[in-house]
Amino acid sequence: MPFSFNVLQSQGAARAGVFATPHGDIATPTFMPVGTLATVKALDPDDLHRAGATMVLSNAYHLHLRPGDELIRSMGGLHKFMGWDGPMLTDSGGFQVFSLETLRTISEQGVEFRSHINGDAKFFTPETVIGIERNLGADVMMQFDHVIPGQSAEPVARDAMERSARWLARCLTTFNESAANAPFEQALFPIVQGGIHPDLRRESVLRIAELGDWVGFGVGGLSVGESKPDMYAMLETTDAVIPRDRPRYLMGVGFPEDLIEGVRRGIDLFDCVAPTRMGRTGAVFTHDGRLNVKRAELRADPGPLDPDCDCPTCTRFSRAYLRHLFVTEEILGLRLLSLHNVHFLIRLMRTAREHIASGTFDRWSADWLARYFAKSEITR
Amino acid sequence: MPFSFNVLQSQGAARAGVFATPHGDIATPTFMPVGTLATVKALDPDDLHRAGATMVLSNAYHLHLRPGDELIRSMGGLHKFMGWDGPMLTDSGGFQVFSLETLRTISEQGVEFRSHINGDAKFFTPETVIGIERNLGADVMMQFDHVIPGQSAEPVARDAMERSARWLARCLTTFNESAANAPFEQALFPIVQGGIHPDLRRESVLRIAELGDWVGFGVGGLSVGESKPDMYAMLETTDAVIPRDRPRYLMGVGFPEDLIEGVRRGIDLFDCVAPTRMGRTGAVFTHDGRLNVKRAELRADPGPLDPDCDCPTCTRFSRAYLRHLFVTEEILGLRLLSLHNVHFLIRLMRTAREHIASGTFDRWSADWLARYFAKSEITR
Repeated sequence: MPFSFNVLQSQGAARAGVFATPHGDIATPTFMPVGTLATVKALDPDDLHRAGATMVLSNAYHLHLRPGDELIRSMGGLHKFMGWDGPMLTDSGGFQVFSLETLRTISEQGVEFRSHINGDAKFFTPETVIGIERNLGADVMMQFDHVIPGQSAEPVARDAMERSARWLARCLTTFNESAANAPFEQALFPIVQGGIHPDLRRESVLRIAELGDWVGFGVGGLSVGESKPDMYAMLETTDAVIPRDRPRYLMGVGFPEDLIEGVRRGIDLFDCVAPTRMGRTGAVFTHDGRLNVKRAELRADPGPLDPDCDCPTCTRFSRAYLRHLFVTEEILGLRLLSLHNVHFLIRLMRTAREHIASGTFDRWSADWLARYFAKSEITR
Repeated sequence: MPFSFNVLQSQGAARAGVFATPHGDIATPTFMPVGTLATVKALDPDDLHRAGATMVLSNAYHLHLRPGDELIRSMGGLHKFMGWDGPMLTDSGGFQVFSLETLRTISEQGVEFRSHINGDAKFFTPETVIGIERNLGADVMMQFDHVIPGQSAEPVARDAMERSARWLARCLTTFNESAANAPFEQALFPIVQGGIHPDLRRESVLRIAELGDWVGFGVGGLSVGESKPDMYAMLETTDAVIPRDRPRYLMGVGFPEDLIEGVRRGIDLFDCVAPTRMGRTGAVFTHDGRLNVKRAELRADPGPLDPDCDCPTCTRFSRAYLRHLFVTEEILGLRLLSLHNVHFLIRLMRTAREHIASGTFDRWSADWLARYFAKSEITR
């Protein structure tokens, strides 16, 4: 079994661990940059290595449409195709097809939808999605799940949670049946659903556990419109019921404050498009909150984006220069800010890990959040 | 004197030399990537070093408008502003303001024009342009010259050549007067003009020589609409009259075939936006001619852009992947193709230099061009 997870140290619910995969070990907690279309936008694999990335995400929905998962399989799999030799995870496309709204029809069998690229009719089922993820060949593949808005009422959330559990069983059957002919060693992660309803979250974990012994667990349906206290409450609920000796992956969460709050509640893996998407609009994370480089007062600012950052952007370029790149719409600006933001989150998690190991995580995380919000325009 | 030029070997008119500047030595012949707005589009300084770039261009006109040359001076000069520690050259903006067509008024004093960004009225004279280039602080600054279309008749070309010579005298006066207070050691290059008229080209060199002893010479007003035989004929004319112990810079020329033909006619330095501009449209140079990565038949092509290229794009990524990046409009594609094209031209000139040194340049360059055009859709 090429997958394992070892918790090396813990402080409260926070854990410092190592998640071993066929493409290498991942020191947890960590942030995983998102390479939706087989590239973390504006960054190349060497950029990702320099930013300290160990595991990278990609997306079954997007890659199925372009360039096609069959093509990627024929080219030797996603690792080879995109030139990333480290661990990789693919999302199932559940979030994407349920986000299509008017373009989709949901049934117990699966989701009919039209491609957002060319309108082609498509049908995603647990079986077809596992086929796609097998073709891509990521180390970890996520189950196809039923995703709902964050504030959904209990009956809606129950229905989606129960369907996700039934779809998980079908995913697992296809996953097992396809193992013999699969060109890559892969693990299937279930996704805990249940919206903002603690009983549903607990029941989701129980139903998942009935189906087998899992390499790790996704926690889905959060950071999708619910309040922060609701999200944090759900993480406390799932922390209490997901086996402690398995990695937990909080899907789609990528702001620094949420990463720290997640680690406090037993989360090991995070992903989000926020650092790269924000970077492309000129917004960056700093230890003193968020900053937009287009602000006029940075015009002649010789300092780095963040004086406490050691990324290739902060060590080489001034705020004045980065502002100039954004004002003149130079492509280089998109890369340099994406690089900073990804580096920032990965380093944040590495630092958290060091403090968990040394028993100083509680104090450090409280101080970190206090500084982050002290000068920030955003509030907790 | 921090500037010098030594011809180490020559074969016919082709020379292998070293051009020494305050920011380092340049092995010639070489191609200089163009960083119009203080960035070679989509590339950072480390990319340029990896591509083998030694000297980089930037542009007085564009930087005067954004972010402003005074700001760049206050930030410590262009080298520091853009993070490039190697040799640098600034173009004077002559080509840009004369390209504005309806937005400009030319007089003996200078050129009145409106900014293409916000319509602000501006007045470029030899004196103001030298002031701008002093603020930028590049190792080499080009004179402000009168640029005309490539096929201009003799009277028009004579008028522009003579005005360029008078403007050179004014540039030189301002250059000398500003030397004492200049924060950077810089050299001023004159620009040989005269259109496609050999007599005017010779007279231009004579007028320039009357004004002083120059560190190097620009050859301007070529690759602007005249035929290739006309361009090559002008290079033969200037080769015969520009002092052989000075570097010659053929302005705005950047296709592989023209670089080789230029070296054959005594040119040492080239620049052009072509490799980056083409790269952003999906077009690349290869040893077998040009290739557009968006072509459908590359969809599953596992090979590199050019099997004989050792750039960071060709050694890491397949044509199929690069095509995918362009089809999906991913930013990374712009960088990877720009990187390949810049690397390609720099390596071509490094190889030419090696063959000049070993006495095999004539044979190598003939073979190189034969292969390049054999499969190419473009013709000689």
